[in-house]
Amino acid sequence: MQFTSEKRLDDGVLQREFTLGEIPGTLWTSGSAPAPLVLMAHNNGLPKADPRLVARARYTAARGYAVASIDAAGCGDRPRSAADEQTRADLRRAMQAGEPVDEIFESFIGPLVENAVPEWRTTLDALLELPEIGGPVGYSGGWTALGIRLAVVEPRIAAAGFFAGGYVPRAQREEARQVTVPLLFLLQWDDEGNPRQRALDLFDAFGSKEKTLHANLGGHTGTPWFELEDGCRFLDRHLK
Amino acid sequence: MQFTSEKRLDDGVLQREFTLGEIPGTLWTSGSAPAPLVLMAHNNGLPKADPRLVARARYTAARGYAVASIDAAGCGDRPRSAADEQTRADLRRAMQAGEPVDEIFESFIGPLVENAVPEWRTTLDALLELPEIGGPVGYSGGWTALGIRLAVVEPRIAAAGFFAGGYVPRAQREEARQVTVPLLFLLQWDDEGNPRQRALDLFDAFGSKEKTLHANLGGHTGTPWFELEDGCRFLDRHLK
Repeated sequence: MQFTSEKRLDDGVLQREFTLGEIPGTLWTSGSAPAPLVLMAHNNGLPKADPRLVARARYTAARGYAVASIDAAGCGDRPRSAADEQTRADLRRAMQAGEPVDEIFESFIGPLVENAVPEWRTTLDALLELPEIGGPVGYSGGWTALGIRLAVVEPRIAAAGFFAGGYVPRAQREEARQVTVPLLFLLQWDDEGNPRQRALDLFDAFGSKEKTLHANLGGHTGTPWFELEDGCRFLDRHLK
Repeated sequence: MQFTSEKRLDDGVLQREFTLGEIPGTLWTSGSAPAPLVLMAHNNGLPKADPRLVARARYTAARGYAVASIDAAGCGDRPRSAADEQTRADLRRAMQAGEPVDEIFESFIGPLVENAVPEWRTTLDALLELPEIGGPVGYSGGWTALGIRLAVVEPRIAAAGFFAGGYVPRAQREEARQVTVPLLFLLQWDDEGNPRQRALDLFDAFGSKEKTLHANLGGHTGTPWFELEDGCRFLDRHLK
């Protein structure tokens, strides 16, 4: 793991870019004591530099966590193909229009999840070697399918927050039952891209004994600010 | 309004019993500054002395609220009829067994709500005259039907927290659309007495622009302790 740049932000959070082989990542920290780690992923193909992810990461870091995100293959700072970009654009358009997207989830997002998981685990290994990171580890992200897969295969993940997961590939819908860590599941009640009943079914399917659903009125990007606080308190209960 | 007894509890909260005509009530306060008021009702016919209600009231008072509850006619400290007691026992048994209870809700709970609302409003008038109560006013309670009716007819109520309202009389299901104050709606995912889909439909029906659903795994009395904190933070956002 090589740090390639660092920047002290005006909220006191230290934002460092790193590379790990081909994987570009960002680490947000505040203070120097060993902090619990939060892996934060954005939904399918959105870059780790996306302003909404950065805002969540900075807020969480300022609350005493080390927060890390990486770009998936073909996303953000990594080489991209025109075909993938087109597929992503098609997917976003279809979701916003409320059209069915199961096929594209199986053919495109499914492999993206499969490929992303080993990279996140490699990143986790490297992060846990840093003196400023002490574990335990949580997952917090809009990429619900990745979170499900990680929570199933990665025993170091002790708690998970998922956002708006109406659509996930069939493989992750099926392995949701194997997720047993404490869970906070965020749902936008009128999310144009994530059918409500599917999200409720997914919440129902998780195997966790402690799972909480927070649903708020409004569309996909309308999550109220107080859910960021609630999300941190959920992490506090399980990681601190 | 006449205070009939007072007791300083070990958490520093002052618990005072009062009567207002035929209505027996309890007021919990901490400190002497004018505090926002929370009307706290328990579900159908459970007394204001019920330990779960008292625990919620004390916690909320210690967070800087004046909290008040009254016994409805035929409940708690008020004269009771054997017939009503029998109906209540039948209702609880049927709800716990997951049997349909619509008929009993229409014939028994409906009038109970109608009769309770003017008493709560009279109590509200009297409470707001006390120097230690400053408004604004919130409602927090397991008696969802009462809360809906109060939120519709009582403009002084600025925010409402409801709990587990799968079953409410038809009149309140219909007037849910007229509720427009910020709302926190608590649901137990496996509540034996409140069908989940009905509770979700009720949440959907509320007219509030800001409404949040918190659902947790478990049965009717299994609400996790952290929802008490979340409920206070919801009140903080709207009443402080």
